[in-house]
Amino acid sequence: MDEARVLRVYLLSIGSEVLRGELVDTNAAELARELTLRGAQVVGHRAVADQLEEVEAAFRDALARARWVVATGGLGPTLDDLTREGLARAVGRKLRTDPQAAQALRDRYLREGRPMPQETLRQAQVVEGADLLPNEEGTAPGMRLALADGRQVFLLPGPPREMRAMAERELYPQAEREAGKAVVVRTLRVTGVGESLVDEILADLMGDTNPVLRPYAQEVEVRLTLVSSHPDPDKAKEKAQAVVAEVARRLGPALYSLDGRSLEETVVEALEERHLTLATAESLTAGLVSARLAQVPGASRVLVGGAVVYHERVKEDLLGVPLALQGQAGVVSREVAAAMAQGARERLGADYAVALTGWAGPDHPPQEPAGLVYVAVADAHGVRVARRQFTGPRNHVRLLASQTALDLVRRTVLGLPFPVTGDPREALGSAPEVAR
Amino acid sequence: MDEARVLRVYLLSIGSEVLRGELVDTNAAELARELTLRGAQVVGHRAVADQLEEVEAAFRDALARARWVVATGGLGPTLDDLTREGLARAVGRKLRTDPQAAQALRDRYLREGRPMPQETLRQAQVVEGADLLPNEEGTAPGMRLALADGRQVFLLPGPPREMRAMAERELYPQAEREAGKAVVVRTLRVTGVGESLVDEILADLMGDTNPVLRPYAQEVEVRLTLVSSHPDPDKAKEKAQAVVAEVARRLGPALYSLDGRSLEETVVEALEERHLTLATAESLTAGLVSARLAQVPGASRVLVGGAVVYHERVKEDLLGVPLALQGQAGVVSREVAAAMAQGARERLGADYAVALTGWAGPDHPPQEPAGLVYVAVADAHGVRVARRQFTGPRNHVRLLASQTALDLVRRTVLGLPFPVTGDPREALGSAPEVAR
Repeated sequence: MDEARVLRVYLLSIGSEVLRGELVDTNAAELARELTLRGAQVVGHRAVADQLEEVEAAFRDALARARWVVATGGLGPTLDDLTREGLARAVGRKLRTDPQAAQALRDRYLREGRPMPQETLRQAQVVEGADLLPNEEGTAPGMRLALADGRQVFLLPGPPREMRAMAERELYPQAEREAGKAVVVRTLRVTGVGESLVDEILADLMGDTNPVLRPYAQEVEVRLTLVSSHPDPDKAKEKAQAVVAEVARRLGPALYSLDGRSLEETVVEALEERHLTLATAESLTAGLVSARLAQVPGASRVLVGGAVVYHERVKEDLLGVPLALQGQAGVVSREVAAAMAQGARERLGADYAVALTGWAGPDHPPQEPAGLVYVAVADAHGVRVARRQFTGPRNHVRLLASQTALDLVRRTVLGLPFPVTGDPREALGSAPEVAR
Repeated sequence: MDEARVLRVYLLSIGSEVLRGELVDTNAAELARELTLRGAQVVGHRAVADQLEEVEAAFRDALARARWVVATGGLGPTLDDLTREGLARAVGRKLRTDPQAAQALRDRYLREGRPMPQETLRQAQVVEGADLLPNEEGTAPGMRLALADGRQVFLLPGPPREMRAMAERELYPQAEREAGKAVVVRTLRVTGVGESLVDEILADLMGDTNPVLRPYAQEVEVRLTLVSSHPDPDKAKEKAQAVVAEVARRLGPALYSLDGRSLEETVVEALEERHLTLATAESLTAGLVSARLAQVPGASRVLVGGAVVYHERVKEDLLGVPLALQGQAGVVSREVAAAMAQGARERLGADYAVALTGWAGPDHPPQEPAGLVYVAVADAHGVRVARRQFTGPRNHVRLLASQTALDLVRRTVLGLPFPVTGDPREALGSAPEVAR
C-alpha cells in the first residue's frame, strides 16, 4: 500500500459519561473497525470530558496527529454539549446559527405539538465554513469541516444508532473515495471449527493482501470479514468473489453464511424454501434452541413448537420417552436423545425434530463429565445422533449445544454431511460421512 | 468532597487491536466505573498503538495530567508488547529481570511439560523500583510503580478476566485507602418501572451525596448502584443500609434484588426455598422464559419442563387448549393465556405454571397491535392474567414479555401484588390490588 496515501484518523469520544464508565464505548470500536477495513489507519483514540478547554485541546492535539478527526458525542442541546464550541476554538473560527437547521428544529417541535426549549437551537449552530450533516434518526445534526490543508473533521452524534446511520451515509463512502477505490465488504460465518484451525486453513489468504480477510472469533463461531478494494467497482466485486469461492472450497459445509446472515436465519430459510417444519425437544438447553429460532421474523411458519423436558417424568409424558429407557441408558445418552427426537417429531407433527440432552454443569454424575451432550435429528428416514464433549461454564456449554443443534438441522435439511463427533475434520466435510 | 484530595486517574489501553476495532474496550469502561464509584476522578482515557514512542509519549502525557496512571494490555511475551519498556523510558529508569518471576515462569512451563520460548522471560522484566503484581489467572504479572512525588503507575493485563481479578485485588482497595475511607458497594435491581420514573421517585437520594445512588438503565430493567463511604467501615455499612431501606420503601415490590442477584436466580430461589415447582407454556417467547431460568445452576430442581406452542394445533395437543376456544377468543387473548397456563400446570404436573401469548411483530393481525402480550400464572387457587402493550422491535418485545413472566411468577410465589396492567403504579404496589 502507498504509505503516503494512507488516511490517518484520530477518534475522539466526547462525554464525561464515558470517563465515568457509565457506558461501554462501542462507537469507537465500530468506527475503528469500519475505517480500518476501508484502508484507513486509526492512529489514536481518546475519551474527553465535557469541559471546554479539554475538548478544545483534544481537537488541537488530534488535528496535529492525523488527517481526519472523527468525534462522537457532545452534540446535544444542553450546556454540557461542547463539541461544536470546542472545535470552533481549536480551529479559530466562529459559530453561527444555520437558519435552515433552526427552522427544521422548530418544525419538528411544532409537528409533535411540544414547546421548544430555547437551548434546542444550540443544535443548529455550525462552525464557519462547515457543513451540517442531516440526522434522520435523531435531532442533533452532525458536521463536516474541511480545512484548507486537506484535513477534515467529522462530528457525529453519540447515540450508537444515530452515529452508525450517519457514518454509513457520510463517513465511510468518503473514506472509500479518499482511498481512491471502491470497497466491497462481505461477512462470512463459520460454525463447528475453532478460530485457530480456521486461521491455519486460510493462513495464505489472510496476509496483508487485497482482498483482506480477517477472522473475528465470536462466542460460539468464527466470523470472517472480507474487504476487497479496487478503483473499478466491478473488479473489486470480482476479486471478492474469487476469495469467497476459495474460502468456501476449503471450509466446505462449515461455512454456513456468505452474506452475514445468522445461523437461525439460515435454518428458518432452508426449511421455509422447502415448505418443511421443525419441532424441538430440549433438556439442558431448556428452550434455547426454539427461542433462538423464534428470533427470526416468520419463524412461526416453520417452527411448530417444542418440548422443554427437564424432569424424567415430563420426558415420558410429553414425548413418550419410557422411564425404563431413561433408567437403563441414562438420561444423557444416545438412546434417550434419539427417542426424544422421534417422540417430538411424532407428537408435535413436524417434518424434522431436533433433541438435546446433556450435562450443562456444574452438577453432573460422578461417572459422566460436565459438558457431555447428545444431539439427535429425526426425519422421515430415521434419526441420527451426534455426541459432543464441550468445556467451559454452564451457559457457554448450553450455548454451544444450541449452536450444534441448529447446525445439525441445517445440515440435515440441506443434505450436507452430519458430523457425529466434535472432530473439526468432520465439520469440514473431509472425513468420510458416517452412515446412519 | 475535598477537591485537593480527589484522586485524578488517567487510563491507557495499550494495543493496536483496540485501534483497529478488533475488540470493544470493556476494560476502560469497567475501570472507569469502579474507580469513579470509589471517589476517584477519571480525567482522561486513551488507546495507544503498539509502538514504543507512542507508548512512551502516552505515559509522559498521562503522568503530567493525573496522580495515578492505570494502563491495561501490552504485557505479553511478544516483541509487540511494549508497555514495560515504554513506561521505563517515560520515567527514565532501567528494566531489569526479576529472578523470582523468571523462575515462576520456568516452573510453570516445566509443570505443563512444554518448552519455554525465550521471549517468555520478557514477562519477568520490571521497571527499577517497581513491584510485580501476581497474576493468578494468566502468565503476565502486573506492575506497580510509586514515584517519589506520590504519583503511581499500575500496569494490568489486557484479558478482561485477568484485568478484573488484579484490579479487585490490588487497585480498588488502594483507591479506597487513598480516599481514606471504607467503601460499601451494593447493586439493587428493579423491574416493571422505567428509568425516568425511578429517577423521579429517588431524585432526592441521587444528588452528590454520600451514599451515592446511581441508576443504570439495562435493556429490560433498571439497576441501581449504591456506594457508601466512611472512615469507619461499620458506619459505611450502616449508612448503606439506611438508603437501601428507604429505596425499598419507595419502590415496594418493584425492587426485586438487594444484592445484585438476577431475576432468574430470585425466582429459582423463591421456588426452591418453598419446595415448589414450575412449568412454562410459551408462544411468542418460544422457550425464552424456560431458557432464562435454566441459566441458574440447580434450576432443574424447580423447573419441571415446558411447552413451546407456536401452532394452534400444538396448543391443543400439548396443553389441551381447544381449537374452538382459540378461534373464538383469538390466539392472543386473556382466555387462551389462562387455558395455556392451566393446561401446562396439569399436564406437566407442577405447582405453578406461567403462560405467554402475544404478537411479537413485525407480523400481526390488522385489528391487533404488535407488542400486545398476555401473561397468565396458574396455581392451586386458579389463574390470573396480566395484559401488556409493549413497543419496540420483535426481540425486544420478546425479552420484555419474558421479563414480565418471570416477575409475575416471583410475585405470585412471594405473595406480592400481581399487576394486571402495565401501569407502573401497579408494579410499585401503590394501586389497590385487583382481585383475581
